[in-house]
Amino acid sequence: MNPVQFIREKREGLKHRREDLKAFLEGYLKEEVADYQVSAWLMAAFLRGLDPEETLWLTETMAYSGRVLDLSHLPHPVDKHSSGGVGDKVSLVVGPILAAAGCTFAKMSGRGLAHTGGTIDKLESVPGWRGEMTEGEFLERAERIGLVIAAQSPDLAPLDGKLYALRDVTATVESIPLIASSIMSKKLAAGARSIVLDVKVGKGAFMKTLEEARLLAKTMVGIGQGAGRRVRALLTSMEAPLGRAVGNAIEVREAIETLKGKGPEDLLEVALRLAEESLRLEGLDPSLARRAWESGKALERFQAFLEAQGGNPRVVEDFSLLPLGEELPLASEKEGVVQEVDAYRVGLAVLALGGGRRKKGEAIDHGVGVYLLKKPGDRVERGEVLALVYHRGKGLEEALAHLREAFQLGLSASPLPLVLDAVP
Amino acid sequence: MNPVQFIREKREGLKHRREDLKAFLEGYLKEEVADYQVSAWLMAAFLRGLDPEETLWLTETMAYSGRVLDLSHLPHPVDKHSSGGVGDKVSLVVGPILAAAGCTFAKMSGRGLAHTGGTIDKLESVPGWRGEMTEGEFLERAERIGLVIAAQSPDLAPLDGKLYALRDVTATVESIPLIASSIMSKKLAAGARSIVLDVKVGKGAFMKTLEEARLLAKTMVGIGQGAGRRVRALLTSMEAPLGRAVGNAIEVREAIETLKGKGPEDLLEVALRLAEESLRLEGLDPSLARRAWESGKALERFQAFLEAQGGNPRVVEDFSLLPLGEELPLASEKEGVVQEVDAYRVGLAVLALGGGRRKKGEAIDHGVGVYLLKKPGDRVERGEVLALVYHRGKGLEEALAHLREAFQLGLSASPLPLVLDAVP
Repeated sequence: MNPVQFIREKREGLKHRREDLKAFLEGYLKEEVADYQVSAWLMAAFLRGLDPEETLWLTETMAYSGRVLDLSHLPHPVDKHSSGGVGDKVSLVVGPILAAAGCTFAKMSGRGLAHTGGTIDKLESVPGWRGEMTEGEFLERAERIGLVIAAQSPDLAPLDGKLYALRDVTATVESIPLIASSIMSKKLAAGARSIVLDVKVGKGAFMKTLEEARLLAKTMVGIGQGAGRRVRALLTSMEAPLGRAVGNAIEVREAIETLKGKGPEDLLEVALRLAEESLRLEGLDPSLARRAWESGKALERFQAFLEAQGGNPRVVEDFSLLPLGEELPLASEKEGVVQEVDAYRVGLAVLALGGGRRKKGEAIDHGVGVYLLKKPGDRVERGEVLALVYHRGKGLEEALAHLREAFQLGLSASPLPLVLDAVP
Repeated sequence: MNPVQFIREKREGLKHRREDLKAFLEGYLKEEVADYQVSAWLMAAFLRGLDPEETLWLTETMAYSGRVLDLSHLPHPVDKHSSGGVGDKVSLVVGPILAAAGCTFAKMSGRGLAHTGGTIDKLESVPGWRGEMTEGEFLERAERIGLVIAAQSPDLAPLDGKLYALRDVTATVESIPLIASSIMSKKLAAGARSIVLDVKVGKGAFMKTLEEARLLAKTMVGIGQGAGRRVRALLTSMEAPLGRAVGNAIEVREAIETLKGKGPEDLLEVALRLAEESLRLEGLDPSLARRAWESGKALERFQAFLEAQGGNPRVVEDFSLLPLGEELPLASEKEGVVQEVDAYRVGLAVLALGGGRRKKGEAIDHGVGVYLLKKPGDRVERGEVLALVYHRGKGLEEALAHLREAFQLGLSASPLPLVLDAVP
């Protein structure tokens, strides 16, 4: 494999051979191929595309570039990925449900960036909870509790980390095959047999159209199946935030309320659908999901999980143990029916309050957030409270401006379906 | 200018703003923009294209990235560029003609690479001749003799050198706007008012088709005119080598014979046409070219030029002062009419003999080469000598194989025109 010849091949729109693609990328990891060569190739791949086979080879090369977990000795190992949204605390609900239904939900999660949140950030609202652990601890917890969520380890798919950092500074991020292979490489390395994908579509998601989201879903499913995994993707709406809580601690609270049977319908619907799909992939009865939730066993699993990872399990009974900023009600200046609560704007509001990070590595405030009292389809009188804003003074003006823009009122609203499609 | 935003712009096929393009490239020279960002941009520019204005801005930024010569105080400063061919010793004929016709032919030249030769290599066949000199020496010789040929200075258009090195290792060389801007940046920095371009077309040239060559010519002329220079390009055939001599010392010999009136017709035709075009650009009588040649004044200039740059001027009278390998005649195995002498194959033959370099910086043998006794249209009997091979033993088998492939015999041949087109 001659790197210049290899780059030229993609530049001309030709298909790579598997061994060349592997050698080029492994050469990069070993610093035998230079970053300026890889970035030229990334741009050629961005503009010329990668076919499904090339995308699979890229993913596998990244997946096997570091440590690979083996979960095959555990019962029904299932993983879940969300393409990121606003108010997306689905993992905190679906994980306990699956663990209670007899699966092993052993997952690596990321942190939030820009307007979207991250599961690790949310869980860190729980006093004492830690996402960092050894491989041994990860496997022990997976086995004992059936539920473990760890911070993404840099040892898993290190080539993905290296390539992502390069894409970030060379304008080669927004490519479906590159995005799909990045996500799936981490899922393959994390070792689950079944993988459910929650591909978000809409204003608050990275995929703005159903078409784009469907292509991403198909590409990820194709990779997973090509690598011998069982995969299903749901396309779910992210026009409005999921549930009512947006912000780290209040999202944990809402997830717990949902496990208690007192949460918002939309969150429960997405969580149950994903759990049911996971059970189907594993050849189990999908109705186990609802039973695990209704019986309270899922809540028990969640509590055991918090404790195993050092968190205070009493937060499940006592929400005052979670951090919470000062409350400010946002009143409506108009009357009408809520037509839209723009998830992106709400995400930006929480970001302004300090609940998210603009750059990697920034500290965040777990106690700030926005709790939506009104959602699309709700009637609102003038002066009625639209949302509660939890803040520490910082960024309040900006947040309120975003929220006022987020709420669109009209004469009537036609609610959109939540689950838009499934692949395959 | 945000580098990532800038790269994204070209990735999306948008047009850059002049100040952004300048800032991005100057940032690269100052090492504020990373090479991996520039290579991603180069690939985007390769695949998305650069429009004539962007190409001009790129060229000007490179041209003014280092030292810029000012020849405006000298009479009729003229420069010439050839896109490279086999047996292309045109500069050695056109330079003396223009100097004798009252112009200043002050030129920077490169070295040969792969199957094509370089003017500096050819002149270094002359014992003692040197292309390295100070700016002061360059200007003094330009003024005193009207003819000076210097090795390309790294101080001129250093950004071009840096970008070219990066393109070379990232498969972003073969782009018309990038090739044109690289050539023209050095011409702009070298300071001549008029520039004639000899764009070679055919088997032995980088441009294989008339269409490609015309596009390159138009792009270069557009840049030159946009930068306020007088430019004309001729498209000339490089199907067969120009003249009969291919190899460093024997090409110098052939150039001298041409200046003496005893050279090959095709070489003289191209040299006179380029000289006439130069004179026209400078508002002078084009017939001065032929008169300078016929009068012997051009030969005198050439001799003075060799001496000024340290070369032994007696080579003009005594070719035995030039290095020459052992002579081996190549006899024809067939009879017929020469239809083709493939310039690329002849170039490869001389490369195999050690007369060219495969990589930058390699040493070459000035005494080896191929002298064509038969050219397209010539009748050949079986056993008749097609060419004389000058060698030192090395690479002889390979060279002979290339030469046997180079000669195509048939029943008849229809000679092609030498000057194919002119731009504008």
